[in-house]
Amino acid sequence: MPQIINGRNIANEIQDDLRADISEWLKTNKRNPSLVAVLVGDDPASIKYVEKKMEAAKYVGIDSKIEKLPDTISESELISKINHLNEDVSVDGILVQLPVPEHISERNVCNAVNPIKDVDGFHFSNAGKLCLNMDTFVPCTVLAVIELLKRTGVETFAKNIVVCGRSKHIGLPLSILLHSDARNQLPGLEATVTMCHRNTPPEQLRVFTKLADIVISATGVVHLIKEDMVKQGACVVDIGMTRTKTQEGKVKLVGDVDFENVKNVAEYITPVPGGVGPVTVAMLMKNTFKAAKIHLS
Amino acid sequence: MPQIINGRNIANEIQDDLRADISEWLKTNKRNPSLVAVLVGDDPASIKYVEKKMEAAKYVGIDSKIEKLPDTISESELISKINHLNEDVSVDGILVQLPVPEHISERNVCNAVNPIKDVDGFHFSNAGKLCLNMDTFVPCTVLAVIELLKRTGVETFAKNIVVCGRSKHIGLPLSILLHSDARNQLPGLEATVTMCHRNTPPEQLRVFTKLADIVISATGVVHLIKEDMVKQGACVVDIGMTRTKTQEGKVKLVGDVDFENVKNVAEYITPVPGGVGPVTVAMLMKNTFKAAKIHLS
Repeated sequence: MPQIINGRNIANEIQDDLRADISEWLKTNKRNPSLVAVLVGDDPASIKYVEKKMEAAKYVGIDSKIEKLPDTISESELISKINHLNEDVSVDGILVQLPVPEHISERNVCNAVNPIKDVDGFHFSNAGKLCLNMDTFVPCTVLAVIELLKRTGVETFAKNIVVCGRSKHIGLPLSILLHSDARNQLPGLEATVTMCHRNTPPEQLRVFTKLADIVISATGVVHLIKEDMVKQGACVVDIGMTRTKTQEGKVKLVGDVDFENVKNVAEYITPVPGGVGPVTVAMLMKNTFKAAKIHLS
Repeated sequence: MPQIINGRNIANEIQDDLRADISEWLKTNKRNPSLVAVLVGDDPASIKYVEKKMEAAKYVGIDSKIEKLPDTISESELISKINHLNEDVSVDGILVQLPVPEHISERNVCNAVNPIKDVDGFHFSNAGKLCLNMDTFVPCTVLAVIELLKRTGVETFAKNIVVCGRSKHIGLPLSILLHSDARNQLPGLEATVTMCHRNTPPEQLRVFTKLADIVISATGVVHLIKEDMVKQGACVVDIGMTRTKTQEGKVKLVGDVDFENVKNVAEYITPVPGGVGPVTVAMLMKNTFKAAKIHLS
């Protein structure tokens, strides 16, 4: 039987620890850490994700608010809102909930956030620091995967890892930390990493996943990873979160991994929902506390 | 018989084209592009490399000079020298010849160069832009490998590539460009890339190199890549440059690839010397011209 990694429990542990740390920190600091989520438009999924972040913030002792903006806002208006938050000394962390409407460049928006308030780690200068294993804000999903591997005791040193998906916010920065040197300010995990993506031929993807001790998928392709692609005893981490509808019309989150079958061969596996997702939110809280400590030190 | 990729010829072609471009550009610009190489200490290899760069600069029409500094210089003195060059409007490109003496942090020095004069592409913000496929200064060796592949007509789309060596100046940025999306400001090469390094077990390295259509090695481990590790018909690119001595006491450059044997199986192979090295120098010249165009536009 595989060990199903319980992301909710791990997230709760992290948030309990963080709540205690923030409470301790408040004995010598005048205000709580603070987080602003910028939400453009009214996409139901985005609203739900932002609300989950706000709930977690409240629990750990982070002041948070949502800056709601209409989806008709122009890129320059949005960036000017961000600049206002950049200059506001009462704000420690800023996140812009993605995606933004199509007429706005996601990249320009990510680069507009002050790097020392960039709790999502999406600014190009923070991406560069991660690349060089300098201390920085690491994207929350990347931190979540690493935390899950560590807390589960899955060895990465000299192991083979396949990362499926080369997104700039997840797959790419994750692959860099997985293969880089542990002897760094921001330590790497010393694995041999193969980056697969939409142009990796399916039969080649299978060759690489079969060689992998750890398979990590972040593609949004439902059930891309099947039982016969996974080595017996491997660890499988599912970052996919595709919103589908059940026959009854209910929204259901589905991952990249064919969980019901892959669990027959995997030694460790994360479910969707309840795997990487909750831990990602917890890591956002850690990043916000880190930002507050920088600003108020 | 393999095609031995002639880096010197390719470098000459690039430099001839660049010489013509700069000559054309000078019709509407008042001064030549300019490059300063900062050389700390008197390591014979470093002196030789810098001199080659100066020769190439002279040929293509770039004004260049060497700023020689004693190896007793402190980090802060060196950074203050770099700041002086950052502010000098007559300087377009600045490179600090590496390695620097051990008492100086290479990372701090690379981060001290003004990003818009950073023709080596080593500043963290330029690393971040590369990561995100934004237009930036790409490290010259990375540009050289991509140029060699393109000019030789080696297909990378959906191919398997192994990169050996995860250095921040070569292996890492190269791997990112090799696997990223072609539809970008800074286009990627769409390959599936496996990053191998000092902690990849030798038998696993062999598994991955045998699967590779292209093997690229940048480790400094003499003859790491042997004939039985390479697939028939593969392309092998050798970035290694280890200085050894012959029995007669002469300095000899030796690569990471056991060239004499690997050429029996490879379809394309770069020699050392005369492969990637000369093209790297040519790409430095291109980066310097790019910097000049930014500053004088």
